[in-house]
Amino acid sequence: MGLDDISQKPHDRLAAWLTDDMAAVNALIRERMASEHAPRIPEVTAHLIEAGGKRLRPMLTLAAARLFGHAGDHHVRLAATVEFIHTATLLHDDVVDESERRRGRPTANLLWDNKSSVLVGDYLLARAFQMMTETGSIRVLRILSDASATISEGEVLQLTAAQDLRTDEDVYLKVIRGKTAALFAAAAEVGAVVAAAPEPQVEAMRRYGDALGIAFQMVDDLLDYGSTAAVIGKNTGDDFRERKLTLPVIKAVARADAAERAFWVRVIEKGDQREGDLEEARALMVRHGALEATRTAALHWAETARAALAEAPDHALRGMLDDLAGYVVARIS
Amino acid sequence: MGLDDISQKPHDRLAAWLTDDMAAVNALIRERMASEHAPRIPEVTAHLIEAGGKRLRPMLTLAAARLFGHAGDHHVRLAATVEFIHTATLLHDDVVDESERRRGRPTANLLWDNKSSVLVGDYLLARAFQMMTETGSIRVLRILSDASATISEGEVLQLTAAQDLRTDEDVYLKVIRGKTAALFAAAAEVGAVVAAAPEPQVEAMRRYGDALGIAFQMVDDLLDYGSTAAVIGKNTGDDFRERKLTLPVIKAVARADAAERAFWVRVIEKGDQREGDLEEARALMVRHGALEATRTAALHWAETARAALAEAPDHALRGMLDDLAGYVVARIS
Repeated sequence: MGLDDISQKPHDRLAAWLTDDMAAVNALIRERMASEHAPRIPEVTAHLIEAGGKRLRPMLTLAAARLFGHAGDHHVRLAATVEFIHTATLLHDDVVDESERRRGRPTANLLWDNKSSVLVGDYLLARAFQMMTETGSIRVLRILSDASATISEGEVLQLTAAQDLRTDEDVYLKVIRGKTAALFAAAAEVGAVVAAAPEPQVEAMRRYGDALGIAFQMVDDLLDYGSTAAVIGKNTGDDFRERKLTLPVIKAVARADAAERAFWVRVIEKGDQREGDLEEARALMVRHGALEATRTAALHWAETARAALAEAPDHALRGMLDDLAGYVVARIS
Repeated sequence: MGLDDISQKPHDRLAAWLTDDMAAVNALIRERMASEHAPRIPEVTAHLIEAGGKRLRPMLTLAAARLFGHAGDHHVRLAATVEFIHTATLLHDDVVDESERRRGRPTANLLWDNKSSVLVGDYLLARAFQMMTETGSIRVLRILSDASATISEGEVLQLTAAQDLRTDEDVYLKVIRGKTAALFAAAAEVGAVVAAAPEPQVEAMRRYGDALGIAFQMVDDLLDYGSTAAVIGKNTGDDFRERKLTLPVIKAVARADAAERAFWVRVIEKGDQREGDLEEARALMVRHGALEATRTAALHWAETARAALAEAPDHALRGMLDDLAGYVVARIS
């Protein structure tokens, strides 16, 4: 392994190791997103899938399966399944959030319409479950239908918790388990299941995915307030404008005095946001150590993910998954 | 059996025969629509489910299972599953169609918002697949995930076919198989499967559900132009205003001369509808026998449904399912 290889990002090294598997996943995705009768379906799907997400979730499935010596091709089906569920979620999310951009492109709901996004998302979910039945494993179906329920439950919870200052850290954890960690956890778990890994290892891979997803989302939520660095960057403030109760806000609200609380009520609950409010919010977070505490929590979850890997066999992929957990929090370390 | 009993509608007789089973289905639905963390979910679901649809689809599952002597309780799970899939479809449909009323009440998208309808629909779909895994039958999962894919494919097809005068009877059949017949067929089929009916009977129940669903939808589409009776009633014209290419329109367009074609282009493709256009559309349909031909097609499909039952065992439920096929077309006979 040369210096170039060492300096590669963990995500790229995983992708390189899984090149053939990922090619098979991409071919299967293209095959299954087709619709003989409704060309709108592959159009919408391709718009999103070919915009090139990181394919992190299907890679978790492939890596977990290979880590435990899987030799068949069910892991390819499951990886495609996981990507379909993720894509369906994005399509529906963009309708729910009325988003206009995703992966650097206009969203499908903007290019076509909300109707197409809702129905194509439904189609992809159905196709995902069809593919799962091809593995013949009821257990895999249970894991991924549980994940799907957790995802939508988390989204509904986020909807009702948004703008509500009573939202606490427990609710926050449920929301981000739904929006992110549930599918990470299921993706890693089904990879281990399809490879017939022993139960303790299956459970360990699930814990790895869960903790990785939580760390991933906490980093995202922290960076939306510009991390702990002094200056707020360009891509910050979206959560603030959408009045989302993310961890930095929850922590700052928990420590607010009466005047500060009035500020949070105005900007989050009432949505009356003025020039300079984002900077004021950030100053309150710094004053109460809310950003630093969020950073510590994210690092803790990344460590939890790495610790879960202790159960996994000694394998090049284990090292890459370990590095991936470190990489997820690298932007805030 | 007294005169009162004979004069009951087939649907009510089915419901009476299946009282205990339906009570179990309703209890299971209430149990599974709960969400510990997101009370919005049961609120939205209850609004729709307790408005009291006819529960036709779950009854098909129960009836098919009992017809073939099923004694366990998997048929109850499957019936609840089918109702969840149906409810999820209604929630998403109302978003897609921007509907304001359903089952005599304001729609969920109006009472809450589109977001809730999309996400609660997703939740119910996930819960449906969870329940299916409890039966331990991959086959049942395959049948219902196939049906889900056909439903959303049919909806997308309807979306792209609407307002397009090139839509022909083949496309129409695919659309209504998606919107209605696919779930009727799957509901009847999984009932037979869970009762371990022999293959030819499983196939026969599928054909029964498919034909029943097609007849059901054709009657609906015909009545939207006031049936073949002379006068257009109150509840007509919705499809015309939404510029849907239903069978009566397709048949009238196929037989249109140049002037008539210009009319259809204006009202359907361009959506330029004026006072008296609905009456003119109906007059053209009568002139070309389009309403009569639609009626004949619906009666044919009802007969196809009845014929499929010839394979079923001699049983009181077989008679009720036979009567149900007659009842579906009774309004146009």
